[in-house]
Amino acid sequence: MKALAIDLGGTHATLALLNDRTIVSHRSLDLDSAQGLASVLPRFAETFRELMRESGVAPADLAGIGFGSCGLIDSISGRVLSTNQKWDDATALDLPRWGKEALGLRLRIENDARMALLGEWYAGAARGSSDVVMITLGTGIGGAVMIEGKLLRGKHAQAGNLGGHIPVLFNGRNCTCGAIGCAEAEASGWSLPLVLREWPGFADSRLAKEPLNFERLFHWAKRGDRVATEVRDRCLQVWAADAVGLVHSFDPELVVIGGGVMRSADVIIPFIEQYVQKHAWTPWGKVKVRAAELGNNAGLLGAIPLLAGGN
Amino acid sequence: MKALAIDLGGTHATLALLNDRTIVSHRSLDLDSAQGLASVLPRFAETFRELMRESGVAPADLAGIGFGSCGLIDSISGRVLSTNQKWDDATALDLPRWGKEALGLRLRIENDARMALLGEWYAGAARGSSDVVMITLGTGIGGAVMIEGKLLRGKHAQAGNLGGHIPVLFNGRNCTCGAIGCAEAEASGWSLPLVLREWPGFADSRLAKEPLNFERLFHWAKRGDRVATEVRDRCLQVWAADAVGLVHSFDPELVVIGGGVMRSADVIIPFIEQYVQKHAWTPWGKVKVRAAELGNNAGLLGAIPLLAGGN
Repeated sequence: MKALAIDLGGTHATLALLNDRTIVSHRSLDLDSAQGLASVLPRFAETFRELMRESGVAPADLAGIGFGSCGLIDSISGRVLSTNQKWDDATALDLPRWGKEALGLRLRIENDARMALLGEWYAGAARGSSDVVMITLGTGIGGAVMIEGKLLRGKHAQAGNLGGHIPVLFNGRNCTCGAIGCAEAEASGWSLPLVLREWPGFADSRLAKEPLNFERLFHWAKRGDRVATEVRDRCLQVWAADAVGLVHSFDPELVVIGGGVMRSADVIIPFIEQYVQKHAWTPWGKVKVRAAELGNNAGLLGAIPLLAGGN
Repeated sequence: MKALAIDLGGTHATLALLNDRTIVSHRSLDLDSAQGLASVLPRFAETFRELMRESGVAPADLAGIGFGSCGLIDSISGRVLSTNQKWDDATALDLPRWGKEALGLRLRIENDARMALLGEWYAGAARGSSDVVMITLGTGIGGAVMIEGKLLRGKHAQAGNLGGHIPVLFNGRNCTCGAIGCAEAEASGWSLPLVLREWPGFADSRLAKEPLNFERLFHWAKRGDRVATEVRDRCLQVWAADAVGLVHSFDPELVVIGGGVMRSADVIIPFIEQYVQKHAWTPWGKVKVRAAELGNNAGLLGAIPLLAGGN
């Protein structure tokens, strides 16, 4: 099956032409979400036409467009429900209609975390599994859930998407989502600097003169810096407790972990797998924990199963 | 629709004859789960025959038997998967076959927390709602989830059942389930005495000479005892954080709270509703929080929708 795919983030978009599990060609565009989505749709259409022309593919050869977007998405109606201050005009757009009018193609839209899970299920770490929780560790913590081979969506299209917003420290710090002590508020790219600056001894840590990110945290923890080690271990415990909560909620056979922090997968995956296998209550057997395999391509490749139907 | 129902707990069972939303008649039996379930099945059959005889009802008038049981239940295969030290022989029994042979009736079995949710959905606090999380606050914390009018069950029949086992304090106390800092480990009937005895000033509290249970906790908190007030408020925060996590996971429109602790519903429901409406991230609107209405009858009345099909 051939299809077009787009993965839309807050600051850029990747557009691709797919043939089953292969990304035939792609383009990345730098964008400013403040300018509005309606104003960039013509660039998307033009870019898709270029990709088709280069490969000698016509719309009639394609199953459609799979559109992965940040924000809350109702994939049934094809509407963007809420964008959290990026692409604010998107909630007013009829993107399936745009796909039909601009390119003559059926368009389906879904949340980017769900698209990444679909992609990993179709072509990556979750192949062959029907019940999967995905956690994406980055600036925030994203989530998506598949149960019995179907994405979980729920009444308001939010189910399974807020895996980073499970309170793991009920008396902890305020989260950007409005809740208190979410995993994301305790151990994510945006909250890490807040945690570090308050940590006893931070001023004497090697981290004090560094950019406060996970790459530097894992770097200095490996070299024995006390503050880096303590905060890294606390982050691992937060992520592992979050994973146990998601396993207890959704009953998966597999947890897939992705995101930029996975450059340290050699530390993170064994820790979380051992923690989950020791502490989660799963009388049927052991949950597997695996690193995502497809990186940024997962969201693009999710377009194929999304368009194929059944999800 | 007429049906038989049984609600099996660790120390007793209630058997009933139902006519739609009415419990026509019932019997409660005191039992010892150590003697095994196989040995009490003849008493169940005899009791059901009595209930039918008294009401002049024959098996041909009945839709079947709805069997609610503690433990993990695979309602599709009709098997008890795991009983957690109660009725240990149940996993080896074919209860649907027993129903057919002993009473000539179709039997369906489901976990007791899911049966209670079905009952509240059919005849109680969740009538008219399709997306519901139920939390039962008692000796432990039970849970069940309905999404789009269907009970959530998951790959190993655990999904939604472990709502009391979401870690809300990742560095908290050990739970009986094997995890750390679960809501149940921080604020339930069994963990309350552990929390109280460690609380600063406990020896001088009015609670020090009382049985350590929620009834006494809410009693003395209302009268201004400092330790009782502080621990009550902590319990409310634990339950509310657990509710936020479940709302973020399952995307319900309604949270129903039941269990023995709900004798203090006048304090608990407003606190949790205000906390959830303030802190849960639900751009679509406000989640409602309601007290369960049917008490112990919920699990019995769940038999009707379970036998009616669709769940």
